[in-house]
Amino acid sequence: MAVSILGICGSLRRASLNRALLVAVQQTLPPGTTFTFDDQLGGLPLFNNDLTDPPEAMALKAAIAAADGVVIAVPEYNYSIPGVLKNALDWVSRPVATAPLRGKPVGLVGAATGMSGTIRAQTHMRQMLVFSDTPVLAQPEVLIPRAHERFDADGNLTDEPTRALLTRFGIAMIAFVERHRVPLSA
Amino acid sequence: MAVSILGICGSLRRASLNRALLVAVQQTLPPGTTFTFDDQLGGLPLFNNDLTDPPEAMALKAAIAAADGVVIAVPEYNYSIPGVLKNALDWVSRPVATAPLRGKPVGLVGAATGMSGTIRAQTHMRQMLVFSDTPVLAQPEVLIPRAHERFDADGNLTDEPTRALLTRFGIAMIAFVERHRVPLSA
Amino acid sequence: MAVSILGICGSLRRASLNRALLVAVQQTLPPGTTFTFDDQLGGLPLFNNDLTDPPEAMALKAAIAAADGVVIAVPEYNYSIPGVLKNALDWVSRPVATAPLRGKPVGLVGAATGMSGTIRAQTHMRQMLVFSDTPVLAQPEVLIPRAHERFDADGNLTDEPTRALLTRFGIAMIAFVERHRVPLSA
Amino acid sequence: MAVSILGICGSLRRASLNRALLVAVQQTLPPGTTFTFDDQLGGLPLFNNDLTDPPEAMALKAAIAAADGVVIAVPEYNYSIPGVLKNALDWVSRPVATAPLRGKPVGLVGAATGMSGTIRAQTHMRQMLVFSDTPVLAQPEVLIPRAHERFDADGNLTDEPTRALLTRFGIAMIAFVERHRVPLSA
Repeated sequence: MAVSILGICGSLRRASLNRALLVAVQQTLPPGTTFTFDDQLGGLPLFNNDLTDPPEAMALKAAIAAADGVVIAVPEYNYSIPGVLKNALDWVSRPVATAPLRGKPVGLVGAATGMSGTIRAQTHMRQMLVFSDTPVLAQPEVLIPRAHERFDADGNLTDEPTRALLTRFGIAMIAFVERHRVPLSA
Repeated sequence: MAVSILGICGSLRRASLNRALLVAVQQTLPPGTTFTFDDQLGGLPLFNNDLTDPPEAMALKAAIAAADGVVIAVPEYNYSIPGVLKNALDWVSRPVATAPLRGKPVGLVGAATGMSGTIRAQTHMRQMLVFSDTPVLAQPEVLIPRAHERFDADGNLTDEPTRALLTRFGIAMIAFVERHRVPLSA
Repeated sequence: MAVSILGICGSLRRASLNRALLVAVQQTLPPGTTFTFDDQLGGLPLFNNDLTDPPEAMALKAAIAAADGVVIAVPEYNYSIPGVLKNALDWVSRPVATAPLRGKPVGLVGAATGMSGTIRAQTHMRQMLVFSDTPVLAQPEVLIPRAHERFDADGNLTDEPTRALLTRFGIAMIAFVERHRVPLSA
Repeated sequence: MAVSILGICGSLRRASLNRALLVAVQQTLPPGTTFTFDDQLGGLPLFNNDLTDPPEAMALKAAIAAADGVVIAVPEYNYSIPGVLKNALDWVSRPVATAPLRGKPVGLVGAATGMSGTIRAQTHMRQMLVFSDTPVLAQPEVLIPRAHERFDADGNLTDEPTRALLTRFGIAMIAFVERHRVPLSA
């Protein structure tokens, strides 16, 4: 059975390296995987727990619920994930009991122009996903330093070691998704 | 010389416990301190590094720059700081070289209905402020668990141990601000 | 088939609350689970990567390899895990390719006399286990605050809500172990 | 007045890159700074709070107390600080009220053969030092990736950009120490 993956990009920039990375993830996933981009983060209002869900939040929750797994591209701003991405997480995480990330297999990838490759942001993201009881793929980590040297001006991945890493990530991610949908024996 | 403190609340909720906590901080600061509330976080658009600063971001940067120190009330959503607060941090942190949080003394407080009292969110916030080279008061930490039992329906602090903690925090915060504005000898 | 769990206590204290907690975990595991205590952490020398494995490190690695899953009781010293526990982790984590924690399901529990219930230490422990590609149970978290009020002088658990939490933890832990030993289809 | 710095290396390896880094820190400190190495971490027993301080712990506490500031070289093992270093921290941190790290200015440096340059370990170390109310220099961070390419076989620093970074670190560290020993006006 085909595995469906939802890709979420934490940056709103038009020429985002993390969006380019997510496209490269899509291109390197094993055959038989379907991949859907979510581009609704920029349409969400700022989260306020006094409000009811806006349509954009309901749509994002539905997209997560419908996917077998989620891959999130995590930029690093101020040593953490972007406010834009955290804001989306705040919207989709309520009510806790039925939050679509509960039990949903997630993989993280991230690109940065510096040397750290979004280590700090991904560390924070992993901690957040403990709250929602979300299994997160541990290895291989996709931490891409000097990312601007690895994509061309059109956002195409040009670095073969990165492509090899993404291929290993894709295989591990699909196995991770399959492990989490195996029904356990009674 | 009077010390001026800017208070920033990370929640947009009308009856926010963290806003009530920040009011209590204001009431317990040592005499001679001026305290200004910032209430502009809800007016900021989602951060996009392709855009120039909106007026709300410029106003927030100016308010931080004008204050001797900043106290941030940090709610905890999904084991981290709210997207709303991170979004504001993303706006005020550029350009890096002239970001108003650089060298600005900051204190953190946080209230939660659960037992952890925003430990995880404050830990993340401290890490973020390393990026901007911002000194953050270490102790006393203001981590208020079961906060709903410590304020009345109008948001007034009713718990004396919490008031005593805030008084110690205020004294430490002002000393921290003064330490960081002492000009060093050549 | 019976599930075998290895229990590791991060404290060397004779009357350790974390050891008492681990005993309570053992008592509340579902029927059919075998539980073995490891008490070798205190016999390990300080880790030095110039040295070959001492017998105590080889024994601990073998014990981890033989178990279906591991439950670690994580005290909190200085806002992190004890040096004693980290030292043991340093010994068992090499060589990386054959480290026994690779892919081994782990659950964390922790007791503290303060309010945080070892939140910070467990957060650090989770991050460390990403390195070794170790799946860690997300929820329920076992964070026991004011632990000295929940055990009697002989280390017996006397607090029923804690027992109920441990029972839920045990069920989740065994399901987690079973999920990770299900062979995936080709 | 001369500033005295205590250097502590978190690795016991004979040809430790972090020891070489600490030597390079010593060589690049501003004139008028005295620098003392501590080499007692390997002599400490495993921490057990049931025990009284061994002589090695008392000596380390005295050395920290006598210094104006401390620079710690933080290797990264298992995405955190070495057990050896954490064990030393556990010994010197009691009793809390008189712990020598309370208020003592600390700077962190770290070298690794990989790309991250000990980011994760230093992040953990910073969190630990919040417990002891220890001011930690925020910037510049000294995170040395591919460190084996930056020192020769005798441990001499051969990389000029690293030397320039250490020079900036040394200047910032001494200013940080001086800021924290300025007596505040009454």
